[in-house]
Amino acid sequence: MHIKLGDYVFLLSSDNKTFLVRVKEEKVFGTHLGNINLKDAIGKRYGEVIYSQLGKPFILLDPTLEDKMMKVKRLTQIIYPKDAALILLKAGIQSGMTVVECGSGSGALTIALASAVAPAGKVYAYDRREDFLENAKKNVEDAGFSDFVEFKLRDVEEGFDENEVDVIVLDLPSPWEGVPSAARSIRGGGRIASLSPTYNQVEKTAESLSENGFVYLDTVEVLIRKILVRTGKTRPFERMVSHTGFLTFGRKAIKVLSLEEGGDEFKTIRPQFDPDEQS
Amino acid sequence: MHIKLGDYVFLLSSDNKTFLVRVKEEKVFGTHLGNINLKDAIGKRYGEVIYSQLGKPFILLDPTLEDKMMKVKRLTQIIYPKDAALILLKAGIQSGMTVVECGSGSGALTIALASAVAPAGKVYAYDRREDFLENAKKNVEDAGFSDFVEFKLRDVEEGFDENEVDVIVLDLPSPWEGVPSAARSIRGGGRIASLSPTYNQVEKTAESLSENGFVYLDTVEVLIRKILVRTGKTRPFERMVSHTGFLTFGRKAIKVLSLEEGGDEFKTIRPQFDPDEQS
Amino acid sequence: MHIKLGDYVFLLSSDNKTFLVRVKEEKVFGTHLGNINLKDAIGKRYGEVIYSQLGKPFILLDPTLEDKMMKVKRLTQIIYPKDAALILLKAGIQSGMTVVECGSGSGALTIALASAVAPAGKVYAYDRREDFLENAKKNVEDAGFSDFVEFKLRDVEEGFDENEVDVIVLDLPSPWEGVPSAARSIRGGGRIASLSPTYNQVEKTAESLSENGFVYLDTVEVLIRKILVRTGKTRPFERMVSHTGFLTFGRKAIKVLSLEEGGDEFKTIRPQFDPDEQS
Amino acid sequence: MHIKLGDYVFLLSSDNKTFLVRVKEEKVFGTHLGNINLKDAIGKRYGEVIYSQLGKPFILLDPTLEDKMMKVKRLTQIIYPKDAALILLKAGIQSGMTVVECGSGSGALTIALASAVAPAGKVYAYDRREDFLENAKKNVEDAGFSDFVEFKLRDVEEGFDENEVDVIVLDLPSPWEGVPSAARSIRGGGRIASLSPTYNQVEKTAESLSENGFVYLDTVEVLIRKILVRTGKTRPFERMVSHTGFLTFGRKAIKVLSLEEGGDEFKTIRPQFDPDEQS
Repeated sequence: MHIKLGDYVFLLSSDNKTFLVRVKEEKVFGTHLGNINLKDAIGKRYGEVIYSQLGKPFILLDPTLEDKMMKVKRLTQIIYPKDAALILLKAGIQSGMTVVECGSGSGALTIALASAVAPAGKVYAYDRREDFLENAKKNVEDAGFSDFVEFKLRDVEEGFDENEVDVIVLDLPSPWEGVPSAARSIRGGGRIASLSPTYNQVEKTAESLSENGFVYLDTVEVLIRKILVRTGKTRPFERMVSHTGFLTFGRKAIKVLSLEEGGDEFKTIRPQFDPDEQS
Repeated sequence: MHIKLGDYVFLLSSDNKTFLVRVKEEKVFGTHLGNINLKDAIGKRYGEVIYSQLGKPFILLDPTLEDKMMKVKRLTQIIYPKDAALILLKAGIQSGMTVVECGSGSGALTIALASAVAPAGKVYAYDRREDFLENAKKNVEDAGFSDFVEFKLRDVEEGFDENEVDVIVLDLPSPWEGVPSAARSIRGGGRIASLSPTYNQVEKTAESLSENGFVYLDTVEVLIRKILVRTGKTRPFERMVSHTGFLTFGRKAIKVLSLEEGGDEFKTIRPQFDPDEQS
Repeated sequence: MHIKLGDYVFLLSSDNKTFLVRVKEEKVFGTHLGNINLKDAIGKRYGEVIYSQLGKPFILLDPTLEDKMMKVKRLTQIIYPKDAALILLKAGIQSGMTVVECGSGSGALTIALASAVAPAGKVYAYDRREDFLENAKKNVEDAGFSDFVEFKLRDVEEGFDENEVDVIVLDLPSPWEGVPSAARSIRGGGRIASLSPTYNQVEKTAESLSENGFVYLDTVEVLIRKILVRTGKTRPFERMVSHTGFLTFGRKAIKVLSLEEGGDEFKTIRPQFDPDEQS
Repeated sequence: MHIKLGDYVFLLSSDNKTFLVRVKEEKVFGTHLGNINLKDAIGKRYGEVIYSQLGKPFILLDPTLEDKMMKVKRLTQIIYPKDAALILLKAGIQSGMTVVECGSGSGALTIALASAVAPAGKVYAYDRREDFLENAKKNVEDAGFSDFVEFKLRDVEEGFDENEVDVIVLDLPSPWEGVPSAARSIRGGGRIASLSPTYNQVEKTAESLSENGFVYLDTVEVLIRKILVRTGKTRPFERMVSHTGFLTFGRKAIKVLSLEEGGDEFKTIRPQFDPDEQS
């Protein structure tokens, strides 16, 4: 596991600043604590140290999924690790699956999806903006997940090429416009996840999901509270990110139930009960 | 993708109750809406419907990671999906990695870890209680992840057999007792994650991590707020799970820096800044 | 400050149960720790102890505003102390003021309002349901605030009798129906506060407030997180009340500004910036 | 209610900026939207408008308690309205009461306490720093509450002059050092409230309260989540103040119970149960 030319390293300074860089022979990387010759990292192991020209130490770490997501070049607001993490788990995304992402933006979530389907699955990432798509493609490449992602320049209303998709993720201003396309491309039992910042979007999306055969709807938001841990004076941080977006999940039913069979009951937008109370 | 004998299905009733069951030829499964002959599911696809003897419909879904975690047989408090999700992502657990879990409890987190390292990695799950270990083993088997987990009956102070481990997860009453063992078994740059309900545990764990060469410490808690989405009357749920535990993360440095090299600075328990502010 | 016949006492048992009772000569009060002769309290001071017939101690406390609010007889959902507290402060309710409350429900907020305007002000409490009004009246009487409250059986659309009101509080299913009446009865600079559980209500209320000359609109929700403090094992409680309602505040402008004067800008529903950032 | 010389007005600009100023004959007040001749306000009513020399409108409002607290001149971190509001209500502070505040800082909470005891009670505000005390005195005077506050330059260990105090509020780095003094000066049934940013302080304070005869201990934190209300796109704000401090409350018992009488049970630091579950 020695670092070699072309590897990505996550540099940590003694004042907790971090830098995601690629090791190149000739590259000098400037930091607030002096310049670093990146070739100094070659042959070292992760966890070891290199020094800037000012003699300041930097620990060489291997970037995690979170690091890769947070360090993408941003042309758009990104989906944060806290939200991506819950999507991966609640949508049940696993190695080998086929996933469609619509509204790939800067590709932060694309990276997380690709990481989850690797080494045997595929993510199809749609966006209508060519500049976003090019940037996302570059970010996914830098994160090392190009093999697991295919990008497509397309408007959501035109639908998706894929069928029997396991999971579809919508990150759109009007997610309900993508729901009918998603309903056609998703397999029975497949999961949909939609992200939206406003309550209004959530309402319209939930209605559309219900009308298009999605059941077991569940809308949540994820709050991360950071704790400042110092011996004898531990407390929560004073500020936090209090909102990024609401996450709405559903699963595809393929039998359309008649009224007599209880179809209306399933169509009711009835949120999942607290899973903690279901055991 | 037709359901066959031996498959697990996640049954959804029209009133949003769910049941995780295994399809067996002869099995009759009792619910509040009547008995179900599970063999009726055979040959159907996920998303289709079977009926109870009372004529009530149940949608056949394939269980997600969340479903499998929530439906384990519990001998202990389990680690909830919200926390497991963030651990997977922040600890950068990927297919092919070697992970040690100490304090496997009822195996809910073990299932999540196994799902993340599959199909090429391995989870070594330690617990000191034989009854817990047997139950966890059964739960992991039911979830379909036995190939990726090896269970070991062992007390944390005795250390771990593995070396160059990518990620170690501690779920212990006294996590600091496991930190020295973890520091020996983890590779440089490897991640540790520890879960504890009290801030006192967090303080002692963070101190121990710092003394044992872990850097970039970060303690957070995850709050999930559920939204009751109904057209024209959408609001947050009135009750929520407000605390399960604090999650503490760190990464292993292998060079012990001298004072002159800034060693003390890295040893300072200095929490990671808000990642949202680091871009 | 000795307790005398007719006083209210707040009894605290050793297992932290509480009872709000009125001291009567003959009254025997039943608890899970035995019966109590309330006349035993007579002549004692607050902070002293009386015993049940089983010899169990109960500490005699004087009820606070919170105790009185929480122990009202409830025919409706009550407004909780956390919300009432912020209303009193943000609406700037002080001794001597005239306050209108519309939708007095079980009277819990009425008690808080009365306490704030005493000893020189007045609360006019409207409700359209006679049974609610009678119950609220009794609750306010028990809390000792009858002198400061006048109850009126009235539908909100009929308007309020009072003029130049300092503060108006709306707790209605359709608060926007009460806004025009409120705008007529409130003085310039007077404050309005409205409580609603759903975001849909909040949107419509904010629109109505803006159209009726209210400015400096501000919508918040109050979350109380309880901490389980035990030496060496302190942590947040595991469950919490995560939603009661949203609180919307505004202030009455009396000059209607023309377009040229910037009237539209004031009418914009522009939420107050974080007061913490305004210093 | 016409504005006259010497009155305070809270000026609101069309872009939601606010200014708390005193009306003086000759004063010109500079804003980002031009200078304002404050004498223009004389004779107008609250809710009316004055114009800057650039022709920009400013609405004349009467400052609420919140405005007065937020606009104090700060030499220290202040206690925020959200926390002050809950203290007033949970400590049951009412007109006519005697309140001791120790650690008056910049006087923001002093103003809230004074407002609550007015017109018949008194706040005794202690601080050990003369510069803080002078600043707080000036802030309380500006807020119009001088008649209800007496300031004392004193270290907490020297105790308080007052006896039979209804409520004592501690805002100290080491609140436990003030608890014995508080226990001597408070009346039976009287309430104590202590504010501290860290968990560690809360633990030590709760222990000290329990040892000094305080019962019914309750520790909470107050979180205010602001909602950005805009028709069709309503959502929570993206950032929030996530921590100011923990509030710990207790009530004074005066009978020291022997072991046989259950004294140890009352001394147990047993937090109050969720009041919502007590009804």
